[in-house]
Amino acid sequence: MSIHSLKRECANLAWDNSIPPALHVKSGDEITFDCLDASNGQLTAESTVKSLGTLDFALLDQVNGPVYVDGAQPGDTLQVDVLRIENPEWGWTALIPGFGLLADEFTAPALKIWKLESDSDSEEGFAWFDKEKGMKVPLRPFAGEMGVVQKKKGAFSTIPPYHTGGNIDTKHVTVGSTLFLPIEVEGALFSIGDGHAAQGDGEVCGTAIETPMKVTVRLSVRKDKPYTKTPHFSTPVVKHKSEEEYYCTTGVDSDMREATRSAVRNMIEFLVAEYGLDRVGAYMLCSVAGDLRMHEVVDMPNYVIGMMIPKSVLGPSVSNKA
Amino acid sequence: MSIHSLKRECANLAWDNSIPPALHVKSGDEITFDCLDASNGQLTAESTVKSLGTLDFALLDQVNGPVYVDGAQPGDTLQVDVLRIENPEWGWTALIPGFGLLADEFTAPALKIWKLESDSDSEEGFAWFDKEKGMKVPLRPFAGEMGVVQKKKGAFSTIPPYHTGGNIDTKHVTVGSTLFLPIEVEGALFSIGDGHAAQGDGEVCGTAIETPMKVTVRLSVRKDKPYTKTPHFSTPVVKHKSEEEYYCTTGVDSDMREATRSAVRNMIEFLVAEYGLDRVGAYMLCSVAGDLRMHEVVDMPNYVIGMMIPKSVLGPSVSNKA
Repeated sequence: MSIHSLKRECANLAWDNSIPPALHVKSGDEITFDCLDASNGQLTAESTVKSLGTLDFALLDQVNGPVYVDGAQPGDTLQVDVLRIENPEWGWTALIPGFGLLADEFTAPALKIWKLESDSDSEEGFAWFDKEKGMKVPLRPFAGEMGVVQKKKGAFSTIPPYHTGGNIDTKHVTVGSTLFLPIEVEGALFSIGDGHAAQGDGEVCGTAIETPMKVTVRLSVRKDKPYTKTPHFSTPVVKHKSEEEYYCTTGVDSDMREATRSAVRNMIEFLVAEYGLDRVGAYMLCSVAGDLRMHEVVDMPNYVIGMMIPKSVLGPSVSNKA
Repeated sequence: MSIHSLKRECANLAWDNSIPPALHVKSGDEITFDCLDASNGQLTAESTVKSLGTLDFALLDQVNGPVYVDGAQPGDTLQVDVLRIENPEWGWTALIPGFGLLADEFTAPALKIWKLESDSDSEEGFAWFDKEKGMKVPLRPFAGEMGVVQKKKGAFSTIPPYHTGGNIDTKHVTVGSTLFLPIEVEGALFSIGDGHAAQGDGEVCGTAIETPMKVTVRLSVRKDKPYTKTPHFSTPVVKHKSEEEYYCTTGVDSDMREATRSAVRNMIEFLVAEYGLDRVGAYMLCSVAGDLRMHEVVDMPNYVIGMMIPKSVLGPSVSNKA
């Protein structure tokens, strides 16, 4: 087993099987990637909402790689064990016009810069959402982008996720978890990026707590999982007591996406009414700490989708309200 | 505070604000409901798949009530505290042609009868899915139907969920949880039914572990939650160690419902390949023990939906496979 590292300059703005490998590794090798945040370094801890106005969108969501894994053949599965993530120090969450589940209802840009703190009582860090109200978000860092190239020729945007992975933004694939990806070309050509310090299921406002990230993974070729046609993952035992109580708002609608939007909208209204948040802050909080779950999808014509917020995020006065 | 009980005969097959109350209670009263299963007693522990052929569908999903709560006014919120559920003894899961998320792929009827067991080591019971393979489902009983009537006149089917509740099939609203429903008529007119011994988020095959159920709730009128326009709920601390490790398959598609279907289809394929299940059994297992989560819904044009199965359900040999 060898240990490799890849510099942050080795990054690309497309999934494209004609991009030559930045690194060759053996199956079972470990690689440390030093990744800029999803703005590709355009935003910093000093940025303000004005910085969003000059963002070059063509530079967003770069991915570091590609890594060629010896022995990987089309039809195999790439096993990605997430081994270590260095604690990030700052992050940002933005509302970017035209982007996000409620883009039509939130048309103005907004930016929040987070200071990410470690917690001496716990392995996980946190970030204050509102210190005065006692509202804080637990940090569970992960890479939003992990993927391999498709067999199809061409340059595919790094913004959408694909059946071969990419921008899957799946919060569960954190340290200790394993991701499985279907390999479509020789060498697999794996890339990674889009550091998130915290995110809920859904990433509803369109961004998480976006952060630069140093992440170490082990890449292994599996010949025994031929049924892997989309990303699969396996999670370890996680002990997050703080997430075990929830307040949930639902959306009920005959259109699945509208039910989802309604669940989020209802949570925003709850947070505004009970916690005095402004609507933008409430929407961001849903994105970084709330989970979208599909409670019921079979009793036609209506679906029930839930937006679940851990009560611990809501601070000490939660018991009166939630 | 008074304690009431309602017999199983006090049940209706519609949400209809013209049905007279079966019971009047004060805000804060407790009521015990004795509910038949969702087949309205047509299926029993001795039923076989042939019994599905003679089911009268017009009798399904009856709800017990309605209960008139003194002081409840349109615009108020009904708080439903789930206090107690008697351990159910048997249950059924069915594939009913035309019903379920993959109805087009599972066209033949199927029925599984479950024996529900208590576990002396734990407060929660379980049901063997496959004793030989060591696969068992933890029991977390809840009522799939809890709702109030709408202000709109007419008889509304008890099959779909509405913004006023009804067949919300939300597994989190179990003992210790609190459901909030928007009140649209004087007295609220609450009903309950559709006992489920276990279900995952989604109820993907269309049925849970369906069971007769004796359930006790406390009904209270809240004047201070005017933003409640759909069902909200609040969950207590839950310690279910067995659910803390997951194997997840995803679906990635530009259509949210197709992404959901793909996630379930991929889990079925995984369970067939790694655990030797038949497809029908795998589909049922997803429905009673797997959770649908929306991992990412903003990186257009594709959504990422996950079907997450607790590894404990998969039995002792899980570590080699998941």
